[in-house]
Amino acid sequence: MKVIIIGGVAAGTKTAAKLKREHRDWEVTILTKGADISYAGCGLPYYVGNVIHEKAELIVNTPESFSKLTDVEIKVRTEATKVDRAAKTVTAVDLESGQETVYPYDKLVIAVGADPVKPPLPGVDLEGVYFMRTPADAIALREAMEAGKVKRAVIVGGGFIGLEVAENLLAQGVRVSVIDMAPQVLPGFDPEFAGYVEDRLADAGIAAFTNTKLAGLEGENGHVTKVLTERRPMKADTVILSMGIRPNTAFLADAGLEMFKGTLVVDEQLRTNDPDIYAVGDCAYTRNRQTGEKAWSPMGSSANMEGRVAARVIAGEEASYQGVFGTGVAKLPGINVGRTGLTETAAREQGLDVVSVTAALDDKAHYYPGAGNFLIKLVAEKGTCRFLGVQVLGGGQVDKVVDICVMAIAMKATLHDMENLDFAYAPPFSTAIHPLVTAVNILLNKIAGGLDSITPAEYQAGAAEGYQVIDVSKTPAIEGAPFFDVKSIRDGLPGFDKDAKLLLVCTKGRQAYLAQNKLRAAGYTHTKVLEGGTMFNGNQFPQA
Amino acid sequence: MKVIIIGGVAAGTKTAAKLKREHRDWEVTILTKGADISYAGCGLPYYVGNVIHEKAELIVNTPESFSKLTDVEIKVRTEATKVDRAAKTVTAVDLESGQETVYPYDKLVIAVGADPVKPPLPGVDLEGVYFMRTPADAIALREAMEAGKVKRAVIVGGGFIGLEVAENLLAQGVRVSVIDMAPQVLPGFDPEFAGYVEDRLADAGIAAFTNTKLAGLEGENGHVTKVLTERRPMKADTVILSMGIRPNTAFLADAGLEMFKGTLVVDEQLRTNDPDIYAVGDCAYTRNRQTGEKAWSPMGSSANMEGRVAARVIAGEEASYQGVFGTGVAKLPGINVGRTGLTETAAREQGLDVVSVTAALDDKAHYYPGAGNFLIKLVAEKGTCRFLGVQVLGGGQVDKVVDICVMAIAMKATLHDMENLDFAYAPPFSTAIHPLVTAVNILLNKIAGGLDSITPAEYQAGAAEGYQVIDVSKTPAIEGAPFFDVKSIRDGLPGFDKDAKLLLVCTKGRQAYLAQNKLRAAGYTHTKVLEGGTMFNGNQFPQA
Repeated sequence: MKVIIIGGVAAGTKTAAKLKREHRDWEVTILTKGADISYAGCGLPYYVGNVIHEKAELIVNTPESFSKLTDVEIKVRTEATKVDRAAKTVTAVDLESGQETVYPYDKLVIAVGADPVKPPLPGVDLEGVYFMRTPADAIALREAMEAGKVKRAVIVGGGFIGLEVAENLLAQGVRVSVIDMAPQVLPGFDPEFAGYVEDRLADAGIAAFTNTKLAGLEGENGHVTKVLTERRPMKADTVILSMGIRPNTAFLADAGLEMFKGTLVVDEQLRTNDPDIYAVGDCAYTRNRQTGEKAWSPMGSSANMEGRVAARVIAGEEASYQGVFGTGVAKLPGINVGRTGLTETAAREQGLDVVSVTAALDDKAHYYPGAGNFLIKLVAEKGTCRFLGVQVLGGGQVDKVVDICVMAIAMKATLHDMENLDFAYAPPFSTAIHPLVTAVNILLNKIAGGLDSITPAEYQAGAAEGYQVIDVSKTPAIEGAPFFDVKSIRDGLPGFDKDAKLLLVCTKGRQAYLAQNKLRAAGYTHTKVLEGGTMFNGNQFPQA
Repeated sequence: MKVIIIGGVAAGTKTAAKLKREHRDWEVTILTKGADISYAGCGLPYYVGNVIHEKAELIVNTPESFSKLTDVEIKVRTEATKVDRAAKTVTAVDLESGQETVYPYDKLVIAVGADPVKPPLPGVDLEGVYFMRTPADAIALREAMEAGKVKRAVIVGGGFIGLEVAENLLAQGVRVSVIDMAPQVLPGFDPEFAGYVEDRLADAGIAAFTNTKLAGLEGENGHVTKVLTERRPMKADTVILSMGIRPNTAFLADAGLEMFKGTLVVDEQLRTNDPDIYAVGDCAYTRNRQTGEKAWSPMGSSANMEGRVAARVIAGEEASYQGVFGTGVAKLPGINVGRTGLTETAAREQGLDVVSVTAALDDKAHYYPGAGNFLIKLVAEKGTCRFLGVQVLGGGQVDKVVDICVMAIAMKATLHDMENLDFAYAPPFSTAIHPLVTAVNILLNKIAGGLDSITPAEYQAGAAEGYQVIDVSKTPAIEGAPFFDVKSIRDGLPGFDKDAKLLLVCTKGRQAYLAQNKLRAAGYTHTKVLEGGTMFNGNQFPQA
């Protein structure tokens, strides 16, 4: 059996290595355009920031060592140019010699990945303009930085990679701005969560300009000096284009393989519409495991898992890849951000009857050094209490909250399934009732009517218009708002009628909930708790 | 409605506060023996170690502030002495005045907690002998330490609390030993995992003597100087008795409430055999949620969740507490330890057909600063692949692995449900294939026969007798063992017959797996991989 694999980074090498372990006697050959294989694409921003010191650490395997370890044959600098499905051959050209070779296959795996989008705009070829896709990109940017040439950078694209590069440049003393044509950074987060992160980026000194489309770049002496948008031009000696990626599938245009937006469509066995051709990694469409819809997940993690499944299928085993929840996590300046499952926006687009809560909670025992907060947004379906998704921000282990939720969504858990679980607790790690369980409890309480609240998104949309803000923080915290200590509330709020519209606001939300509970007992009928308190909605309230 | 709650630490205060939120007009009264309520029991070792600096941080609420916040009436220093179920009254004595009062109740909640076991041995009342149960215990020990009186401590009991105290004393420069009558420290871990931790404690300078029963204490001038066991006496100026706890239920002996080993038996609604009497926290027996058997979980986390459920039930809501998985986590010197679900030992006691794997895996991208290892043991049922439990050790976020597994067990996940999940990945947080997914893959591979291995426990039990150790580490690492680079293995191992019994050992297990795969293809029939490699089984192999 001859297996040809086109592409040799994450998905390609994983497929090849696993296949040889299943069938040592099969001929497995990787054809790959680049000189490197199997590099750590997700580590590139950290090489730029000198968090990862050595180039060598970015390379998981050299072609030679990989080949010896696995017995896979590797042809580097070899670009596939054509697939002939009838003849079952791949034509590829040796980029050094120009020599064309035809490789016959029994099974073909396409793992060609994706290249960064390079907009057809003036100036994108100037010096000082970088992508962040290959080790060479990161090495070039760091060299420029070490040569003192990077003082003022503009990053085009506010996704995870763009913001990770921003964080790493900032830590090296570079002035960093981010522009994005979308109305928010962090696609995959609800707007108010992305907005919160934009505020934290601003606190850290990174201006993020949303709704701002790149119009072109200007330079002097061949080097970039300005970024042009509809706003006034931005000075820059360095520009990083992180505007997304596009599958390298142009050479397959005439092959008759089913594609969607240039990406190969595969089934749960990673098989294309040709039963002898598989596609894995960034060039393949997978599914959203939750909605069943097509989803593109160009991530190192998916690539590795898809490669493994494809190899097992080709080897004759029963295996399937059920897709992704769109999980993501990133370390940004002073704040970690994570998500999985459906956002509120996405859940509404699915036509679901959605309920959500945003809770500000301790991330470990409040008295333990280094304790901080999680801002957790849970999204669920109202009637069934089916858990749909989470977004979480904080200085600590947001990945933990996300990972528990991945497992919950995979098992189609309801909020009730997530109540009262004895998650790991000791003061250095968590709180006595786990923050995720507390968030679930709050949401269930809201669904049951025990909490009547306004989400940060609803607040931003004007849901509290006509409401009087009442400060129920532990000590007065909101300028101009009447303050009441929750402990003092018994028969009501002196000066406020029982049918007054009152927005109860405290630091995190808990005091406001306790105040509402007492006020309801005292006959108050129109109180609302502001979820996330001044911690989440801080910029809306002048601080006392 | 009058509700009396006996006990005011975690479970009692939680029940009371929640109940008042549900029914503000009910009379809820806490009777509690101590002067403090609602303190952070789990934080005590960290106060001793000055990780938590201020006493005040140990106190979650004072009786006054709690009472004002919740409208719960609190009688401190008030010890319940009798429950008259027919009359529906509690008799309690004011410990200051000696005055006895009879309190009528409609519903009674028993949350009296548990006191430390004080063995009836000579010397246990000497100065320098401490418990670690209340703030007063921790304050006394820290005062002694700050007065320079604590130089050499012996901790009796190698459970989480004992070892947490050991860690905190060690960090303050105290010489620390631990004795435990059990054959291992860390009950709830399999012996080889506990043994690994004992080795790490020894590396850190803490000698742990297992199978060592306390026989008594000796002193001079009223202060402890020696710890007596069957071994030679141990010098000590400080002894911490952490030998377990016993529910404070003696006053209920004649009340006719069903008990098991002195602990109140309750149903999923936390109700005793008297429908008007509930029990929560350390004095109540709950269930093992996995096996359905009775289980005692005297933990702050369970106490809080039980209190919340009991309050909801009493308030008339539908709610249930389904019990615990026996989750635990602790920060020990240089190593964090976590577990949930069934150990291999416990699963075998349940009569299950058990399979396990021990894997040594990167805890985040290997090139990211601070990356370390997880040692993960997964336990599953062989035929069904039902996931049963996890034990995890490492320098990093073991709590994350545990928490995902809690969610998995709660949903009765199989290993297949845990494959190929897109858990959160970015280099600062995890690996491209999540370490838990990798461990699951290895176990599935073992079940399917793709990996033929010996667990550390089997190795310690002699399963590799008659096998030749082959060092297949990346560079030679085992003194006296023939070394082969996996890359060089193609047709076999020169000098070894194809039916030779070969134990393949590398640092973590992966190279050995690759070597086995190649050797099998070359016709070798009797190879075994040592799970966890020299990283887990290090003390068994002289290092080259």
